[in-house]
Amino acid sequence: MTKVSNRSQQLSLSPIRKLVPFADAAEARGTKVYYLNIGQPDIKTPPKAIQRLKETPIDILKYSPSSGINSYRKKLPKYFKRYGIQVVPEDIMITTGASEAIFLSLMAIMDIGDELIIPEPFYANYSGFAAMAGVKIVPVTSSIENNFALPPVHFIQEKITPKTKAILLCNPNNPTGYVYPRSVLEELSSIVKAKGIYLIIDEVYREFVYNDTPFCSGLELPGMKQEIVIVDSISKRYSACGARVGSIITRNHALLRAILKYAQFRLSSPGLGQILAEAAIDLAPTYLEEVTTEYDRRRQHLFARLSAIPKVICYLPEGAFYLFAQLPIDNADRFCQWLLESFSHEGQTVMLAPGSGFYASPGLGEKEIRIAYVLNTKDLDAAMDCLEIALAKYPGRD
Amino acid sequence: MTKVSNRSQQLSLSPIRKLVPFADAAEARGTKVYYLNIGQPDIKTPPKAIQRLKETPIDILKYSPSSGINSYRKKLPKYFKRYGIQVVPEDIMITTGASEAIFLSLMAIMDIGDELIIPEPFYANYSGFAAMAGVKIVPVTSSIENNFALPPVHFIQEKITPKTKAILLCNPNNPTGYVYPRSVLEELSSIVKAKGIYLIIDEVYREFVYNDTPFCSGLELPGMKQEIVIVDSISKRYSACGARVGSIITRNHALLRAILKYAQFRLSSPGLGQILAEAAIDLAPTYLEEVTTEYDRRRQHLFARLSAIPKVICYLPEGAFYLFAQLPIDNADRFCQWLLESFSHEGQTVMLAPGSGFYASPGLGEKEIRIAYVLNTKDLDAAMDCLEIALAKYPGRD
Repeated sequence: MTKVSNRSQQLSLSPIRKLVPFADAAEARGTKVYYLNIGQPDIKTPPKAIQRLKETPIDILKYSPSSGINSYRKKLPKYFKRYGIQVVPEDIMITTGASEAIFLSLMAIMDIGDELIIPEPFYANYSGFAAMAGVKIVPVTSSIENNFALPPVHFIQEKITPKTKAILLCNPNNPTGYVYPRSVLEELSSIVKAKGIYLIIDEVYREFVYNDTPFCSGLELPGMKQEIVIVDSISKRYSACGARVGSIITRNHALLRAILKYAQFRLSSPGLGQILAEAAIDLAPTYLEEVTTEYDRRRQHLFARLSAIPKVICYLPEGAFYLFAQLPIDNADRFCQWLLESFSHEGQTVMLAPGSGFYASPGLGEKEIRIAYVLNTKDLDAAMDCLEIALAKYPGRD
Repeated sequence: MTKVSNRSQQLSLSPIRKLVPFADAAEARGTKVYYLNIGQPDIKTPPKAIQRLKETPIDILKYSPSSGINSYRKKLPKYFKRYGIQVVPEDIMITTGASEAIFLSLMAIMDIGDELIIPEPFYANYSGFAAMAGVKIVPVTSSIENNFALPPVHFIQEKITPKTKAILLCNPNNPTGYVYPRSVLEELSSIVKAKGIYLIIDEVYREFVYNDTPFCSGLELPGMKQEIVIVDSISKRYSACGARVGSIITRNHALLRAILKYAQFRLSSPGLGQILAEAAIDLAPTYLEEVTTEYDRRRQHLFARLSAIPKVICYLPEGAFYLFAQLPIDNADRFCQWLLESFSHEGQTVMLAPGSGFYASPGLGEKEIRIAYVLNTKDLDAAMDCLEIALAKYPGRD
């Protein structure tokens, strides 16, 4: 009798996707579901970039170079220059989404059993990539009382052992919306430099910062040529999640050569997505300004609605398009499932991501949920109507 | 000081891609290089499928479901039905190329240290996927004297240990062109069934079979619901290597659920490629017939040219679009590099893949090379002119 691997049996299901069968069943019953569980924006992919892709003559859709289509790699520095960041094409490796960028970075940096420090709550799929790479996540817990700010860096420093090979941040943060101040990034830089380890920063939400302090990229930190590895993607920036185009940017070329070995096995990243991504660099800056303004509007609106619900603990997130809230409930997994299975308000309900899957420490996040404010304010309103009424009716309410 | 992982340092470079810098340098000197090292066909991607992609309205390029776009999964059984193969959408998981299909299959089937039996020579990147998954390849050697036919199956049976979790075949074979007869597949079926292990068959060259015996897919083997895992891709079939669309087909749904966990981490496969792939299913069968006829012409031509070169040992391959030949040289790695670095004939040279990288057993394949007959007969002719003259001039000739 055939079996599946032990390692696959030990994997947790994604908190973002595990309730999908219940949502499908709700829809099959005719219930309208507002999807706030997944970072899939309702913003249009830039029509001009789509048009450019469609106008590109494609004779043979060939393998691209394993590091990415040359013209795209050569053009990306132009995008970074707008943020005052100097990179050269040789610093860039195109990947199949940020997902592959993270996985390959872990493979090239870490060996089996090595330790990766990540502030929690963190993007749940980091657990998956770490499991695939056979490395151990060492969490540093941030809390809703401080709007999920990074705890003082000595808490991180204390976690470093001889097995620690990297610290992984997401800035702006998914799932909390926290934006790392430059001063914190500089403190972390000193630590990784002193220890000879890496600071991997997932910056896929770079554009989505709503406070007045400008976003600080890891690429701006001085004297960090060897240590900094940036993960990027066009998925959120251009609402092109399905293109599967990401990148790794680092000035550490020895590391890029190690990553390239893995990238060569899979031959190349998606060609059509790379054509789209290259076209998007030419978009007027107003495109991203408008998108950011729209997310800001949603953020304010979501915060106002949530704040008005009794006993909901939340805060105004500073970046990305997520809010991690604490609800007056017994258990978020049960509540989120109940929302889909047993609740509807005027034929509608809402899908949320339960919080526990965003923590590596057992027992944390059980009353927390992640909300992705990826829907327009009208839909957000309808979803918040559902949540407010559901919280009043839920049998397991606190 | 930062370091890269030990595991990345231990990786071998792809024999198919490692000479790329020498080819780039040859081109920079103005030498025309015929690329027979890589399975990148010069056949056009079906213009009708490209057109259909371009006509598809794309408003938001969303994540597709982790198992693939539903309409594409639902349509794929129609493609298989043409070959008399019955599958249902629930048997299919769409992947990012056959590369990901193999890697995820290994992750879901095998644990670290488990053993995977593969007849050698084999597609070199299998070594990479095995290394990434932390599993050990146990080779069974086939030889050019038998046109690389599979050795009697007891040779395979003898290699099975408690750690063996799967046998991996490529049928039709890359790099040898060998096509597994139904009788051999049935013998292997009995073995894997008795042992409770898997038979993974990479069938990406399914269409490219040139002898009269019809191709036998693993999906046709009776009573093998649990054991058979098929790897597929549109890369070669539709000359769409850059689309990065493959699939895993198995009637073992417990295995597919294990694979889905990994697939959810990376969210989805490329959306644009899947649209193209779905459109290609509607192509008239004449498209593939014409392509196969063209490869057959090249095969015959290549074989005739190689056979005419003194002391070259080769055979007429039965399938795929590769030929694995033995040359009268000291070392194929040196020869292939010399072709790019130190040789040209009328301003032209040829790039080949050295044979040793296709073996797991040390020391094998050192006089062998893989030729991909992916260029038209005129270009093949020019490339064979180069090879013939190069073999006469090469200082390390036997």
